[in-house]
Amino acid sequence: MRDWLAIRAQATPARTALVHASSGEATSYGTLDDEVERLAGRLAGFGVDVDDHLGVVAKTRPAFVRLAHAASRLGAVLVPLNARLTARELTTALDTADVDTLVCTAATEATAAEAFDGPLATLDPPTAGARRVSSIHPEPFELGSWTRDCTAVLLATSGTTGGPKLVRLTMGNLAASAAASSWRLGVLPDDCWYCTLPMYHMGGLAPVYRSVLYGTGVAVSEGGFDPAESLAEIERNGMTTTSLVPTMCRELLDADDAGVLATLRFVLVGGAPTPDSLVERARAAGVALYPSYGMTETSSQIATASPDQTRDALGTVGSPLMFTQVRIVDADGVP
Amino acid sequence: MRDWLAIRAQATPARTALVHASSGEATSYGTLDDEVERLAGRLAGFGVDVDDHLGVVAKTRPAFVRLAHAASRLGAVLVPLNARLTARELTTALDTADVDTLVCTAATEATAAEAFDGPLATLDPPTAGARRVSSIHPEPFELGSWTRDCTAVLLATSGTTGGPKLVRLTMGNLAASAAASSWRLGVLPDDCWYCTLPMYHMGGLAPVYRSVLYGTGVAVSEGGFDPAESLAEIERNGMTTTSLVPTMCRELLDADDAGVLATLRFVLVGGAPTPDSLVERARAAGVALYPSYGMTETSSQIATASPDQTRDALGTVGSPLMFTQVRIVDADGVP
Repeated sequence: MRDWLAIRAQATPARTALVHASSGEATSYGTLDDEVERLAGRLAGFGVDVDDHLGVVAKTRPAFVRLAHAASRLGAVLVPLNARLTARELTTALDTADVDTLVCTAATEATAAEAFDGPLATLDPPTAGARRVSSIHPEPFELGSWTRDCTAVLLATSGTTGGPKLVRLTMGNLAASAAASSWRLGVLPDDCWYCTLPMYHMGGLAPVYRSVLYGTGVAVSEGGFDPAESLAEIERNGMTTTSLVPTMCRELLDADDAGVLATLRFVLVGGAPTPDSLVERARAAGVALYPSYGMTETSSQIATASPDQTRDALGTVGSPLMFTQVRIVDADGVP
Repeated sequence: MRDWLAIRAQATPARTALVHASSGEATSYGTLDDEVERLAGRLAGFGVDVDDHLGVVAKTRPAFVRLAHAASRLGAVLVPLNARLTARELTTALDTADVDTLVCTAATEATAAEAFDGPLATLDPPTAGARRVSSIHPEPFELGSWTRDCTAVLLATSGTTGGPKLVRLTMGNLAASAAASSWRLGVLPDDCWYCTLPMYHMGGLAPVYRSVLYGTGVAVSEGGFDPAESLAEIERNGMTTTSLVPTMCRELLDADDAGVLATLRFVLVGGAPTPDSLVERARAAGVALYPSYGMTETSSQIATASPDQTRDALGTVGSPLMFTQVRIVDADGVP
């Protein structure tokens, strides 16, 4: 089957796919499809082929979304890498994931150039010898195709327990997670998900794939997290949903005099335990907070609590999503 | 994996699963799960086993929903049969689908008894020798399990083109259709789908399976379609969505002085072409009408138009759902 974006663009070409949160500029699925086709051609021109491992060492930005879809279009495997790694750590991560080609940015180019001997391209003006992606001439390429068992993403765990482990996520894993999440949180045709979490972690990457399946939009922030700026972006662009880690959520609540968060259909929080005080504060502010538990290995959330559930049982992350089973064990693996 | 209802009941036991539309009585997923467990035991006591073909010849009613889930729980295949068939037609349909055990109702028992030599049970007080389901002592049974490729339903096409054909629908088919539909129409945690279409056709059966995946409710009408009664049921029970054939939709609009249909999040119409006049009338009445095209072979809708799309192009059924491809051919199969 064709890549998800191609199918989506054929189904609903006029719907909003991607919003640059800072400028408010919106791109339709039809236009995004064209942009990704061109980007995939450039990557092909740079040597990326079917089944290649395409590393991306970048903070969250709109181009990250295009790179993820371009990898799918080429039938390549996306390998998002933490933009905060040192050169030594990055070398290990690149070796572990067997990365063939690496894409970096202005902020990561120096580290990437030090860590990687293979073909290196950058989204920004080069400073350390990388090839600028936009300067590569697009080449024709074989269309990638996929089945449920194809590897879509190789992603290091966020390292909550022990050292980071590399996790293989198939197209089927991502699709099942997208379905289960939509059946817990709901999905509406006009939804637009505000993305400010790092896309090199599962929590930040999940909306990129889900939105294409849902036919909804993602609004992508860039330049790092700033509470006042995020609130302005959410308000200006008419966002409906977002996902955050608890700390960011608290900082947003601190800055949210205008009640912007309360206009969202849901605020999904995860990546760390959600403090009871945050749940209570969100409730008082009229914010639809959904504490969740998830892991990279499960393509993000596998249990999520609604505001009703946290009202009944503070501290809960709710029940497991559809088709997931949770067994709670002690340190020795005993239930 | 356990049957869908078991998984759903574990995830969200307190949510509303089934509403008796005439009385307004609501059953939670936890309670429905218990009822289905008992019903599955009765069917086991009547001889229904894994992989058996369980025929159901009944009009739409709440017990139809329980029978569908009880079949899944036993690992049996559900074979819904048109309640309007003559004994001769029913015999052919039962033979074609290789039905092992048949469940009927007061209205279909005489025909069923004439058409079927195998074990016959009825949901109502017996009149022609069938065994009443509620009188069967529940027996222990092996839990059914399923994979995507397991057959869930054998269903005759509605016969739009040529004679009826028997269609095999797998669990994977039903799940994929549920996902694609939810990503077009949206799904909200508090949705409740008003069911008045015959459940022996795909259009009427689809919400039974989808709602369990979504964790939402179905409100099931019984006793046949009556416009005034349907409007009262929709209003009384706070329904949010429904599916209809165009004729029923027109009759409801005729009777809808109070604007009840306009309170629904969507009214999905299909099973026959939606006349332009109906689209325009619904729009004038503020009804969110979604004309669709589908077929039994695709587990119902595969293309669906939003009110925005029909405003731009009257007569459209919109674009194909996610992961479906449509090729339009002439009578000779030429695109």
